[in-house]
Amino acid sequence: MVVGLVETAVPAAKSTVSSAMKKPTTLSSDPIINVARGDPTIYEPYWKKMGDRCKVVIAGDEFMSYFCNAMNLCWFLLPELDNAIRTLHRVVGNAMVDDDKFIVVGNGSTQLFHALLYALSSPDMPEPINVVAAAPFYSSYPEETKFLRSELYKWAGDANCYDRDEPYIEVVTSPNNPDGSIRGTVENREGGKAIHDGAYYWPQYAPITSKADHDAMLFTFSKATGHAGTRIGWAIVKDKVIAAKMVKFIEVSSIGVSREAQLRAAKVLGFIADDCRNPDVKGENFFEYGRRLMSERWGKLREVGMKSNGVFSLPKYPRDYCKFTGEYTDSNPAFAWLKSKEGLNCENLLRDESKIISRGGPSFGVDSTYTRVSMLSRDVEFELLLERLAAVKGTVNGN
Amino acid sequence: MVVGLVETAVPAAKSTVSSAMKKPTTLSSDPIINVARGDPTIYEPYWKKMGDRCKVVIAGDEFMSYFCNAMNLCWFLLPELDNAIRTLHRVVGNAMVDDDKFIVVGNGSTQLFHALLYALSSPDMPEPINVVAAAPFYSSYPEETKFLRSELYKWAGDANCYDRDEPYIEVVTSPNNPDGSIRGTVENREGGKAIHDGAYYWPQYAPITSKADHDAMLFTFSKATGHAGTRIGWAIVKDKVIAAKMVKFIEVSSIGVSREAQLRAAKVLGFIADDCRNPDVKGENFFEYGRRLMSERWGKLREVGMKSNGVFSLPKYPRDYCKFTGEYTDSNPAFAWLKSKEGLNCENLLRDESKIISRGGPSFGVDSTYTRVSMLSRDVEFELLLERLAAVKGTVNGN
Repeated sequence: MVVGLVETAVPAAKSTVSSAMKKPTTLSSDPIINVARGDPTIYEPYWKKMGDRCKVVIAGDEFMSYFCNAMNLCWFLLPELDNAIRTLHRVVGNAMVDDDKFIVVGNGSTQLFHALLYALSSPDMPEPINVVAAAPFYSSYPEETKFLRSELYKWAGDANCYDRDEPYIEVVTSPNNPDGSIRGTVENREGGKAIHDGAYYWPQYAPITSKADHDAMLFTFSKATGHAGTRIGWAIVKDKVIAAKMVKFIEVSSIGVSREAQLRAAKVLGFIADDCRNPDVKGENFFEYGRRLMSERWGKLREVGMKSNGVFSLPKYPRDYCKFTGEYTDSNPAFAWLKSKEGLNCENLLRDESKIISRGGPSFGVDSTYTRVSMLSRDVEFELLLERLAAVKGTVNGN
Repeated sequence: MVVGLVETAVPAAKSTVSSAMKKPTTLSSDPIINVARGDPTIYEPYWKKMGDRCKVVIAGDEFMSYFCNAMNLCWFLLPELDNAIRTLHRVVGNAMVDDDKFIVVGNGSTQLFHALLYALSSPDMPEPINVVAAAPFYSSYPEETKFLRSELYKWAGDANCYDRDEPYIEVVTSPNNPDGSIRGTVENREGGKAIHDGAYYWPQYAPITSKADHDAMLFTFSKATGHAGTRIGWAIVKDKVIAAKMVKFIEVSSIGVSREAQLRAAKVLGFIADDCRNPDVKGENFFEYGRRLMSERWGKLREVGMKSNGVFSLPKYPRDYCKFTGEYTDSNPAFAWLKSKEGLNCENLLRDESKIISRGGPSFGVDSTYTRVSMLSRDVEFELLLERLAAVKGTVNGN
């Protein structure tokens, strides 16, 4: 019995777990595998093994007030979470978290991306500020920027093609989603603003080469530890005025962030930090576990999923010295960025020939020979994905 | 020792708990009492008394996926919460929750208000849709509507003065915030849309006269039970297309709602419903407790806070037959809507003469002789508030 993700009639983001035969007889009876979204269920077994060590208990009378810490600029941030975030970044060495930097918590880093657009724009400007990102960029940035038709900011596409002499915000994801590349800004004009998304800058995905130290950095609990149902993200911000505007945004959007989710994030992040700092306690800390798992999956993808048919190719992912592990390590991105032979529509090919739902290149600002496949699914789904990829012939064009 | 809310240098919404003498010697040494926001800490003792009966325990590996229930339109809604919401509304009788209605959960009802503006507007319309509310209206509606400068919708002020022959959304809060009045739409033109906010339509605040049955209704955990740190609100929506657009809004804004907060809300709402349905188990259910407490506070406000000086007056609040309690009951609103004598600025008067921070009439679309004072603070703060109100002379104009 293999458990697969079955795409339902509901929106593309959704999927249900259903059973399917190990060796499907006909394509039409196979379950659809949905790897379009990066649902990080890969880490479930680890957290199951940790058992009660990461359990949280909340009494009926806790967290009744809107206010967490009125002395803090971010008045809805749980002090325990502030502390756990700073401690973990110090232990991992992936971001500067000096005491004079501001931590702003959000309902996922998605809400903080919106908050930053608001904070970096101004109603006093004659035109909406341009928001750009170098293609291939995270597929949600355009929609998130455009969907409310704000007069404060507007989506202006690929940063590589941006040539207007106007104010802009460049969004930089590094390691990049979808292609795992290590990035800086491509626009470097005076007065240009940037949002640095470090969602995947954790040891299981990429070598940690230095402490990131940008004006505004985003991180998300979901990709760091796999807790995607806990909508917690955080921003590390240098400028007090920007941080205060973000806090205002979150106040007006949702009057803060649920304390229960913050408590749980504090517990899990604190647990990982402790575990990393006390390596004698047990074998593998979370990042070692995650890195081993991701490395094994990437090995299998290259051996089994890619090698047999020559239909797809993968980018060359960076290898570098990781200060966290103290050795040279490979990148093991959260997504595989597949490219098919010219003339093929990669997303349609996977869908029509293999019942694999992926997210095609055009969503990321590039052509349809590319598609993005999540590497973070549960084991059974990943094994099924490998089997299907290996069987792709490239005979169905899908265009 | 009296514990009071001290206003700090941080934004007006914030306050810290600090100690102060029972009988302050000079005004300058008194702590500021902040009753500008309706922080519902009044209910803390009740939930403390309930102890472990409302405790939630969450293991480290729970809620890892983005998805809660892929078969549901609102794919991030915890089924237990859906069930608890419907059950409680059936028990209280304050809203119709037929099975064909959609429940959409949000990060507080604030996020759902934004989601409804998005869902009820359209990028295909030539002009932004007008958003109106009859003054005095909830002070956050204008800011929430305006702050992102959306081209989809715009704030158009007091519904009583609205005379444009253009599409509109009317926001109706009933019982109303700030004045506790029972309301319907004031605009009733064909094609007009409405958002019905039932935040205060619970037995502790008002008689439950009928099951509300509007197209789109909002409720919030914070005002129903006092859990304001848990950012949970819900909408009850008739039209599937509107509900789906709201779900889309919450996906693009925050990829759903934290499961921990939903679990806790489900536990607490379920507990209340059970308690109401099994009256033999113990003495007072939550709503009976809340109604008694609010009724006592209103009695004291009228006796102590209002009677002595003649500076302020209060609206006449409705009394009606409450189907939930089976008797005629008074309204005991969450806010007192104070009106001072003509020529006085009520907010400034309270601030300058009594160090009481309230929210003045202009924030609610009316003149400055009005101000709003929260009735939901902790006991010690409420007692201090009464003492200060009783001492107001009206000699400081504050203009």
